[in-house]
Amino acid sequence: MRASQLPLFTSKNDPNDAQVASHRLLSRAGYIRKQGSGLYAYLPFGDMVHRKIEQIIREEMNRFGGVEVTLPVITPAELWQESGRWDLMGKEMMRMQDRHEVGYALGPTHEEAMTDVARSFLQSYKQLPINLYQIGRKYRDEIRPRYGLIRCREFVMKDAYSFHADDKSLDETYQKMREAYRAIFERCGLKTIPVEADSGNMGGSGSEEFMVASSIGEETLLLCSDEACGYRSNQEKTAFFENPSRGESVSAQNETASEFETGALKTIEEVAKLTGQNPRDFIKAVIFEDAQNIYLCFVQGDRELSEIKMKNLAGATDYWLAAEETIKAVTGAEPGYAGPVGLKYKDGENVEGTLRQAQGDEKVMVSPSNHGKGKSADNRKTLRVFFDTHLKGRSGLITGANKTGYHTKNVAEGRDFTISEGHDLIVAHAGDICPQCKKAELTETRGIEVGHIFKLGKKYSEKMKLSVLDPNGKPLTPTMGCYGIGVGRTMATSIEQNHDERGLIWHKNLTPFVVYLVSLAKSESEIAFVDQLYANLQAKGISVYLDDRDERAGVKFNDAELVGFPFIVTVGKKSIESGKLEVKLRRSGEKLELSEAELVQLVME
Amino acid sequence: MRASQLPLFTSKNDPNDAQVASHRLLSRAGYIRKQGSGLYAYLPFGDMVHRKIEQIIREEMNRFGGVEVTLPVITPAELWQESGRWDLMGKEMMRMQDRHEVGYALGPTHEEAMTDVARSFLQSYKQLPINLYQIGRKYRDEIRPRYGLIRCREFVMKDAYSFHADDKSLDETYQKMREAYRAIFERCGLKTIPVEADSGNMGGSGSEEFMVASSIGEETLLLCSDEACGYRSNQEKTAFFENPSRGESVSAQNETASEFETGALKTIEEVAKLTGQNPRDFIKAVIFEDAQNIYLCFVQGDRELSEIKMKNLAGATDYWLAAEETIKAVTGAEPGYAGPVGLKYKDGENVEGTLRQAQGDEKVMVSPSNHGKGKSADNRKTLRVFFDTHLKGRSGLITGANKTGYHTKNVAEGRDFTISEGHDLIVAHAGDICPQCKKAELTETRGIEVGHIFKLGKKYSEKMKLSVLDPNGKPLTPTMGCYGIGVGRTMATSIEQNHDERGLIWHKNLTPFVVYLVSLAKSESEIAFVDQLYANLQAKGISVYLDDRDERAGVKFNDAELVGFPFIVTVGKKSIESGKLEVKLRRSGEKLELSEAELVQLVME
Repeated sequence: MRASQLPLFTSKNDPNDAQVASHRLLSRAGYIRKQGSGLYAYLPFGDMVHRKIEQIIREEMNRFGGVEVTLPVITPAELWQESGRWDLMGKEMMRMQDRHEVGYALGPTHEEAMTDVARSFLQSYKQLPINLYQIGRKYRDEIRPRYGLIRCREFVMKDAYSFHADDKSLDETYQKMREAYRAIFERCGLKTIPVEADSGNMGGSGSEEFMVASSIGEETLLLCSDEACGYRSNQEKTAFFENPSRGESVSAQNETASEFETGALKTIEEVAKLTGQNPRDFIKAVIFEDAQNIYLCFVQGDRELSEIKMKNLAGATDYWLAAEETIKAVTGAEPGYAGPVGLKYKDGENVEGTLRQAQGDEKVMVSPSNHGKGKSADNRKTLRVFFDTHLKGRSGLITGANKTGYHTKNVAEGRDFTISEGHDLIVAHAGDICPQCKKAELTETRGIEVGHIFKLGKKYSEKMKLSVLDPNGKPLTPTMGCYGIGVGRTMATSIEQNHDERGLIWHKNLTPFVVYLVSLAKSESEIAFVDQLYANLQAKGISVYLDDRDERAGVKFNDAELVGFPFIVTVGKKSIESGKLEVKLRRSGEKLELSEAELVQLVME
Repeated sequence: MRASQLPLFTSKNDPNDAQVASHRLLSRAGYIRKQGSGLYAYLPFGDMVHRKIEQIIREEMNRFGGVEVTLPVITPAELWQESGRWDLMGKEMMRMQDRHEVGYALGPTHEEAMTDVARSFLQSYKQLPINLYQIGRKYRDEIRPRYGLIRCREFVMKDAYSFHADDKSLDETYQKMREAYRAIFERCGLKTIPVEADSGNMGGSGSEEFMVASSIGEETLLLCSDEACGYRSNQEKTAFFENPSRGESVSAQNETASEFETGALKTIEEVAKLTGQNPRDFIKAVIFEDAQNIYLCFVQGDRELSEIKMKNLAGATDYWLAAEETIKAVTGAEPGYAGPVGLKYKDGENVEGTLRQAQGDEKVMVSPSNHGKGKSADNRKTLRVFFDTHLKGRSGLITGANKTGYHTKNVAEGRDFTISEGHDLIVAHAGDICPQCKKAELTETRGIEVGHIFKLGKKYSEKMKLSVLDPNGKPLTPTMGCYGIGVGRTMATSIEQNHDERGLIWHKNLTPFVVYLVSLAKSESEIAFVDQLYANLQAKGISVYLDDRDERAGVKFNDAELVGFPFIVTVGKKSIESGKLEVKLRRSGEKLELSEAELVQLVME
């Protein structure tokens, strides 16, 4: 293609809001143009790369048994209501009403829509397994769209949904999708790290993310430092195993628990300074609530509670940090003095026994002034108590006394409170012990998620009444998997991994053109020479972009570097006379003088 | 592809709401599945056809100079506000708000969005002309979505927008797009009729629709019966020329106009019965209003006023039939007695003189009870009067007397009222005279619009301040064209033109597969034979769908006919023994017995 037919859209200026290389360079090189917050137009080169990635995905999905379909982008609210997600999806889901005030979502994902399609034709186990995928637009109303194509509000995803008669079949397809994803990212020239991941509000049992390591990544990955172990996980999902080097636990079973005055000192740091005791020997209380429940969580004092672990454990979705009124109702004290010992309701009922025995669900009277948020009809919420497993068997602990201005010391689990069932509630970090080999330490890296595969289980098929007949003619609810890849994000992360200060550097499978032919031809015979070369290269099946603009050589060279095709070939009077083309390899910057035949051979390799 | 890999989604039942063949058969054959009102999922075969059409469009657009891009589907309200269409687009445009209550449209068309992209990089006349196109989703909140893919609410369009330094350049691209469209529809095997069309609310000077003749078409086309003339037009746009055979006009200049009592007889039909005079010799009054104006239109009594012509002439957009109060305010009479003679305001001011001289704009007092709709601040609206040109020079006419219970007869234009400027205001029909050759009669046919090309002019470039520098360094506002094709509608109309009672019949360029191979193989050796044949045909580059299901032969034959690939080849024990394959041509139903080599030869043709 010639620049006179397919113009360049390069620009000298970076977008004002560009914080990362891919956003900055894809904009300057004229691949994308912002049209609104988190909304990007793809200009010709951008569109070409995007379609190349789509085609790679399509080919690999087909090769691994995927069946392509296309669903409507807007999905009727009634489908989301069937699954229960209409209320759960919150503000991230873009919604609209039609002229008849019927509600729709601009699908952020299509589990419901695909299950709806599947139930319209699946009748027999013989039709299983089936793996339906589409490549289409998705919407997510991000609070802060940023990083260009990496976190935008409208984007193209390949999303696949598989349906199975049993878990074994699901696992087979899940493994095939892992292979497909490896193949896809390899063909795109992307180095990805598959990590164990949290399933979030998708439901289901297993999940793996394909991460691109990047300092701008919004995800934290924890990797086992022992490569032989090879454990890799999203921090959200990583089980916490404490490093023994963190110090031994205080052993003080024989000392009686006793309250002591701490006045206005509320935080663990403050009380630790007062007592000289290690924060590790404190019990930290964190309290959340939602419309129906209060979640009272206790973890070791030096560590952070994982909201994701809490949320998954409790099955909570739309929750918030407990209001002051709620904390008072639960602990009988101002915020800052909560602990598991001698916990009292506001109305005076001592529930210590309950905590000791069952950590069960108790109704708590909540003040009606509870910030107006999600009050339950009778102003009573269920109290649910969760302990981190690392508190089990510990003694000599300090915790809030559930009494304003007081803490309790020498607290022992099993005596002053009991953990009947401990949970994994702590955010793991680099330096913790690998939960797989249980020997080596974890290291940390940042990553961008480009793909995600899930075992969904029967969450959607049950709720949406997808049922087929099994070999005995009995109804069978299929189990499901789902598998997503962000197309634009794949494009952007490829650039995060491959660029320099002069511009983009494309992988051979993604580049809009293989050769950027800079014409310095002036005379008619020179122009004829360049046209012939252009024709010759194309005849060999090489895709060539001919910069035939009436521009200075410097402008053309700069644009050639900026748009980032693998080979930059310059032809002018000098090269015509010498019979040697000036070839620059975009990635290495290496310069070569080659005959046309040598160039063809090099490119073909 | 094998049925065991790519399953059939055929069904025995028609959708409840299917009124037309394409909807019924594409659903039954498993190409599409409804997911909501006017929302369709494309199942695998449907998706394949859709992508084939997209690819044909892409190739022809590129061949005729188009440059592909992709814009966001949701477009910020501020762009629509710049052009003034945010308010004009009405309920057909789907709208939504994000979490920050910023408004967006789900683009029904992308003039504003593409002009916004263009102004971000167009700086010089040297960059013109440029023709940017995309293939993407569009939304239209139809009152009554119907006919499956023909009138749905989410659909894929190819929409192109060209930018030019002058009208000559626009015309060149417009002509190229005509050629491209002809090529596209020809490659899709669609017979289209290009017709002159109304530009609607797109603005602009010239416009042509590509119509597929169909009894279910929602458009009426008028064609000159003289093929040498070749005039073809959308009825909306067709200029009205009366057929002389409709009778001569009454000549009664000498008789004085006089009122006569008509009591409760209000319609032209009723008064014509009373007087025995031809409705053609009546003046019909039709009155509309909007927030600012009252539109009083007079046409020949036997013809229908064209709202589209009125609307275009007046520049009206959101108007309605005048309320009773308004009619009384204008005519001083109950509805049913309006006429151009002696017209009085309610307040008694006689405006006959005004009408005679200028047909100008006069302020009319409108009752405040004006249905609460669009009252102007001072309850005064501008009266605008339009006469159809066919009333010019006429006499002996009957019209309402602007007095309840009375009409006026022997009315003569030029004496009793004057038409200073006549307009074309009448809906043309079959039997009228062709406005091009002005000799032959028009004939009528129904059509479905599959493509539309417009000369937009500077409407968007001016309003959105798109400006480039001309050769003298002066600012130049580019003129624009736009060019659309409905992809799904092209698919559906192909089926409207090509089906029979047994199912779909695909054109060779659109069919998902060329050969439907019905395997009746039972034994291992038979299966091996079929597999070999399947491999052989594919090795020749023939796309084959192998029905290897464990189903009865009858089920396979029915499905083969239903899904409509061009060649149905049956292989079983019999054909293996005879060395002859049973080949059925889907379109003609012709049955042949061919060797493998003969089959390959036939298909390759």
